[in-house]
Amino acid sequence: MKKPWSDKLRQAVPYAPGEQTSDRDVIKLNANENPYPPSPKVVEAIRQFPAEKLCLYPRITASPLVETLAEYHGLKKEQVFVANSSDEVLAFCFQAFFHSQKPVFFPDLSYTFYPVWCDLFGVPYEQKPVGEDFRIRLSDYAPENGGVILPNPNAPTSLAEGPDFLRALLQENQDVIVIIDEAYVDFSPYSALELLDEFENLVVIRTFSKSRSLAGLRVGAAYGSEELIALLNAVKGSYNPFTLDSIALAAATASIQDEDYFRQCIEKVKATRTRSQAALEEMGFVVLPSQTNFLFVTHPDFSAEAIYHACNDHDIFIRYFKQPRLENYLRITIGTDAQMDHLFAFLHEYLQR
Amino acid sequence: MKKPWSDKLRQAVPYAPGEQTSDRDVIKLNANENPYPPSPKVVEAIRQFPAEKLCLYPRITASPLVETLAEYHGLKKEQVFVANSSDEVLAFCFQAFFHSQKPVFFPDLSYTFYPVWCDLFGVPYEQKPVGEDFRIRLSDYAPENGGVILPNPNAPTSLAEGPDFLRALLQENQDVIVIIDEAYVDFSPYSALELLDEFENLVVIRTFSKSRSLAGLRVGAAYGSEELIALLNAVKGSYNPFTLDSIALAAATASIQDEDYFRQCIEKVKATRTRSQAALEEMGFVVLPSQTNFLFVTHPDFSAEAIYHACNDHDIFIRYFKQPRLENYLRITIGTDAQMDHLFAFLHEYLQR
Repeated sequence: MKKPWSDKLRQAVPYAPGEQTSDRDVIKLNANENPYPPSPKVVEAIRQFPAEKLCLYPRITASPLVETLAEYHGLKKEQVFVANSSDEVLAFCFQAFFHSQKPVFFPDLSYTFYPVWCDLFGVPYEQKPVGEDFRIRLSDYAPENGGVILPNPNAPTSLAEGPDFLRALLQENQDVIVIIDEAYVDFSPYSALELLDEFENLVVIRTFSKSRSLAGLRVGAAYGSEELIALLNAVKGSYNPFTLDSIALAAATASIQDEDYFRQCIEKVKATRTRSQAALEEMGFVVLPSQTNFLFVTHPDFSAEAIYHACNDHDIFIRYFKQPRLENYLRITIGTDAQMDHLFAFLHEYLQR
Repeated sequence: MKKPWSDKLRQAVPYAPGEQTSDRDVIKLNANENPYPPSPKVVEAIRQFPAEKLCLYPRITASPLVETLAEYHGLKKEQVFVANSSDEVLAFCFQAFFHSQKPVFFPDLSYTFYPVWCDLFGVPYEQKPVGEDFRIRLSDYAPENGGVILPNPNAPTSLAEGPDFLRALLQENQDVIVIIDEAYVDFSPYSALELLDEFENLVVIRTFSKSRSLAGLRVGAAYGSEELIALLNAVKGSYNPFTLDSIALAAATASIQDEDYFRQCIEKVKATRTRSQAALEEMGFVVLPSQTNFLFVTHPDFSAEAIYHACNDHDIFIRYFKQPRLENYLRITIGTDAQMDHLFAFLHEYLQR
């Protein structure tokens, strides 16, 4: 029955959460989480956190995280923005920077949240099909637009573009804001951060959820010119001024301060990625050359959807997207070597049936 | 110099943060923070938190906090929504429920963030002047509107309305969503939660920042009918699905589980409020009958702005609003007895100069 107030409500499609379970002991390779715990310095920062201070609001400046990130990346603190996960950082960016009647451009295969934010904030957009090889085509981004956003490396394709591509993209789009979403960049060889000096209209997004093993802490960052970062802070200040709690600020800061541990985890993931690619290719899978902490794979002789369901039934969670162009691909997060071996043993048996 | 991309940017006025300092040891009575630390059970939950699990995303259901709050308030879990502070809960509510061409009504003197969210989300609004006695006038909310939001108790006035007022307001506004923002309700005798059974268009907002001494943790909640809470979850899922980090979920849950400590803190604040009102009246201040953790006061013979600056110079932070109707009032958060005695000693000396 229609309620009398129904015409005042926004129409919103409920979000379909990814699979989670606390009941069963599963091998979780479906959310691109890091299989290794955060730095022991993070653990210590949480244990030592002066909880009695929680009666006070966090620092409005998100201190000391902002200063620590600025120093780490060799930027001014006025070029650093932090918020509650890179999802929230991106939501602020869409509101701040995509305020045009012209469509924002992004790839058809990329982060599935981009069109959701466009719909929520009324931002017009056009999705540009990636090529048959799943690569982003530079020429698609030349026409006039209201802004550009690209994940680099891209997900779910796992492919990365290098400095020539990014510089050309920025040169072609000097009258709009260009956002490079670097959620997976720590597993790849190249970051757009070095282009910040050259392009004042560039914004680079990072997350603590993947390479820093802190998906449960919800911390993301944006880097850009002082003008653009000031606008992000103004939008955040108009929405929810204190989105990072005091514990998250302390723990994220501790993560940045443990470079050795960070590098070790990344090297472990990359080594497992190399091993995993070989093992899957051995079984006949086609594996795209990943620059991320996941593999994007297909098998010429077996249905991806069937493999996905079989894995699920055996408590191995991987990701399957039932949508055009992706329907015979699987996205497999790089777990520990032991987790991957378990997956490979299962797949080996499955493919031989 | 105007940049080529300037026309794609949103115009946003940077937020002016409240005074904070980490350099000086000040008496901080300007942000309605609780002077007492959070429950020892909260402290323990943080120390015992399994930090190695932070590599995983939080529970999409915000479990176990949602279930714990539902049980605590005698509601279904489908009637409970949680997010990163009541500011974020309110931001989601404005997007979800105020989706009309008709203006939303709220008092001219109330939470100064309401018009900011209206501007950010393009919600038309009308501010209804409170009376000479600073009370909200029921008849102002009778005309056709796009929704109603009221803080109860109200800030900065500290005044609360009772069940008759709220029931009449809801009866008059059955074709829109009515939001009662109960940030300070734990210091007052009456909550609109008991009206949820009666009015499906009612949404009640709560925060952990005041009565639960957790301003630094950023946790807020909304309660309403299953239909409205589902819509809030859909909007949250379209914005940032995981806004509460895993530590905040655990710590907030522990707070709810320590009812004795919670009650003790509230009684201490209320006792200090009674003492403080008497002490200020003794010095000639007019003190409104507060149902909150702050006092709203004026002095017939002294300038509020001058008192505010004098306090500030002596490292006592209180709140002054330089705006029409409030320019000779001060908002003073209830601190510990010792903090209040320090303030009174200073005021006593100041008034005698």
